[in-house]
Amino acid sequence: MSGPARATPHASSKATVLDVIRAAGVISRVGLIGATGFTGATISTVVRKLIDEGLVVETGRAESTGGKRRVLLQLNHSARYAVGVHLDHAGNTYVLTNLGGAVVARILRPGVADPAAVVGQVADSVSALVEGVGIERELVLGVGVVSPGAPGAPGADVEGLVGELGRAVGLPVAVDNDATAAALGEHWSGGIGGTATSAALCMGTRLGAGLVIGGITYRGNGGDAGEIGHVSVDALGPVCWCGGRGCLEVMAGPAAVVAEAGELPSLARELKGGSVAADFAAVARAARRGEGAALGLLERSARCVAVAARSLANLMDLEVLVLTGPGFAVAGSVYLPVIREELGRAVVGRGSGGVDVRLSRSASTAPAIGAAALVLQAELVPLTQGLRLPENLAAAEPAALAPGV
Amino acid sequence: MSGPARATPHASSKATVLDVIRAAGVISRVGLIGATGFTGATISTVVRKLIDEGLVVETGRAESTGGKRRVLLQLNHSARYAVGVHLDHAGNTYVLTNLGGAVVARILRPGVADPAAVVGQVADSVSALVEGVGIERELVLGVGVVSPGAPGAPGADVEGLVGELGRAVGLPVAVDNDATAAALGEHWSGGIGGTATSAALCMGTRLGAGLVIGGITYRGNGGDAGEIGHVSVDALGPVCWCGGRGCLEVMAGPAAVVAEAGELPSLARELKGGSVAADFAAVARAARRGEGAALGLLERSARCVAVAARSLANLMDLEVLVLTGPGFAVAGSVYLPVIREELGRAVVGRGSGGVDVRLSRSASTAPAIGAAALVLQAELVPLTQGLRLPENLAAAEPAALAPGV
Repeated sequence: MSGPARATPHASSKATVLDVIRAAGVISRVGLIGATGFTGATISTVVRKLIDEGLVVETGRAESTGGKRRVLLQLNHSARYAVGVHLDHAGNTYVLTNLGGAVVARILRPGVADPAAVVGQVADSVSALVEGVGIERELVLGVGVVSPGAPGAPGADVEGLVGELGRAVGLPVAVDNDATAAALGEHWSGGIGGTATSAALCMGTRLGAGLVIGGITYRGNGGDAGEIGHVSVDALGPVCWCGGRGCLEVMAGPAAVVAEAGELPSLARELKGGSVAADFAAVARAARRGEGAALGLLERSARCVAVAARSLANLMDLEVLVLTGPGFAVAGSVYLPVIREELGRAVVGRGSGGVDVRLSRSASTAPAIGAAALVLQAELVPLTQGLRLPENLAAAEPAALAPGV
Repeated sequence: MSGPARATPHASSKATVLDVIRAAGVISRVGLIGATGFTGATISTVVRKLIDEGLVVETGRAESTGGKRRVLLQLNHSARYAVGVHLDHAGNTYVLTNLGGAVVARILRPGVADPAAVVGQVADSVSALVEGVGIERELVLGVGVVSPGAPGAPGADVEGLVGELGRAVGLPVAVDNDATAAALGEHWSGGIGGTATSAALCMGTRLGAGLVIGGITYRGNGGDAGEIGHVSVDALGPVCWCGGRGCLEVMAGPAAVVAEAGELPSLARELKGGSVAADFAAVARAARRGEGAALGLLERSARCVAVAARSLANLMDLEVLVLTGPGFAVAGSVYLPVIREELGRAVVGRGSGGVDVRLSRSASTAPAIGAAALVLQAELVPLTQGLRLPENLAAAEPAALAPGV
């Protein structure tokens, strides 16, 4: 895998052209010149190399606009693959995606607590995915692994895990947190594609947010951006483990909902105590069956989540907020209208025309798809070489600028 | 003024080199090659043009490291100037800055409510600044004007104002909101320079935040990013004009502090009712004299501001938070320890090593300096052409990536 550190000027133009082709679906060489700003000679050379490497194929001609009909290019989706792994206490999701990020195979496995068991399960599952689809292992670029904890969380021996996994599966390994990966997964699967500034609000075992600015996942100073679970919704509220008061996680996160459900006799019997995410899903099922106590708990949670989402929207001036992750896969129908109402009523930005709040169409697999996209993107887009903040987000452009007379 | 739309590839490399020289202070041609990634031939050509235009000067040689001693380059600070205007109800601040963003002259004028009077005052003040310093008017690149309202706020006829001001002063005009400008001003004046992700929390007539990501002010989807005044710190709190509950502005902003002070007989007599900012300054002076009621009001406000700042820090994973604007110029000594304590105790990001909370050294003039920087930056850095998200903020780079074995 060509990581950013090893990228060359040639790798940069190749990666830029590949990402433009991926995002466009199909595009002509002339279209690539317009989209990249490269010269015709550069595009011609790079495209020939991509075709020679089997990453891009020609796919017919565009409608004539008077002159010669242009040859269209697209990714050769089956040229490469990546494995994405979402480790969660409730269960582990494995996906094999093609070069375009589409899921070609999926496996669900039970969650495991022992790190050694994780390594074994990942190695077995990667083999099962690759053999099940019948592709050559050489075509798999690597394995992305994401989990609820941020990579820098205490006790997470990330480097150790990456090394062990790499040895066990014989492939490059990338790791990240589930919310950031979910945002990347939504971006790659079109859930928030093309938008200027968007966020994925991800609910699994915990609440987290991933931020995408102009197609780039924003990570912050230390890789910990998007910690919406520690946005306070009550300055005088209960103390969170982080030391703050009234954090969203402690007020309304899945663990808080499950704890409250455990206090209610009508709901307590639904809870198996296996994992927070599984018990949260049980509460959501009870709400969908029309049980008032369960619905009341989720609606109270949704109101807190909506307030924190409004704070996020006002700080980031979002265009799109997508609700994703296993928690919203089971309870999104309760949360969506409450969050939509709050953001429709009370976001101050007027230039933006409001925030488009959506429920993901791939909520349960978005973190795993994003995990695979980590690997694909490291291959396709060595970001240190080329991407820019889009014009409408850029700083130097003042809000209004008129020539003097 | 060369705006982004008119920038050419040549303008791009020129602007990139100029901004690198500005940020570095002094730098050699070899240093520029390393910082920009351009070839030696490109750097040589661009630097020669910049010297011919009078924007850059040679300034001696570096210490020898064995070979030939390298010629050092720096901005010719007196080659160009810009005017920055901070309009606030409490008073208007005018600065003339040189090409490096240093203030060379400053005028304070009373606030005026009538738009026609604003145009007249700005035109008079620009002339007074330019004539007072004795520079040629042709060297002034333009006028930046910032105010508490976002450009898109209802009732703000920004295009009309820009047109009228442009005609009145005969110079290009840029407008923006005060908080975004304050962040840019802090960046240019070194208050948050060199940091990966930082924010300026600006208190004038209102509370706002400006976000700087890798040297670029982040504006969001519609130019309304950083609205920290509408981060909720109490989901069940009082209703704000925006429709939300418990917004920071309504709980703890300058207007809320002044309203509470008006209810207290010991403080009410200090308030002249001229403007929120002037009355807030009166409360701050009373607190500095040791009046307990005033100190209590400010400390209560500071605790709310600290909670919202923590939410911002957890979402953006900040490296630096600088307190700036006229409000913090008078009351920063009360707010700083409270915000520092909250962010020191309860920010979840561990990768970042905590948030560095600072009080600006130019709190009262930062919005005006930023207004001038809007103009300078439009000249120096047509951002659509070149800047990138820095490596440590970029998306494609996973948190850990190890080769398979």
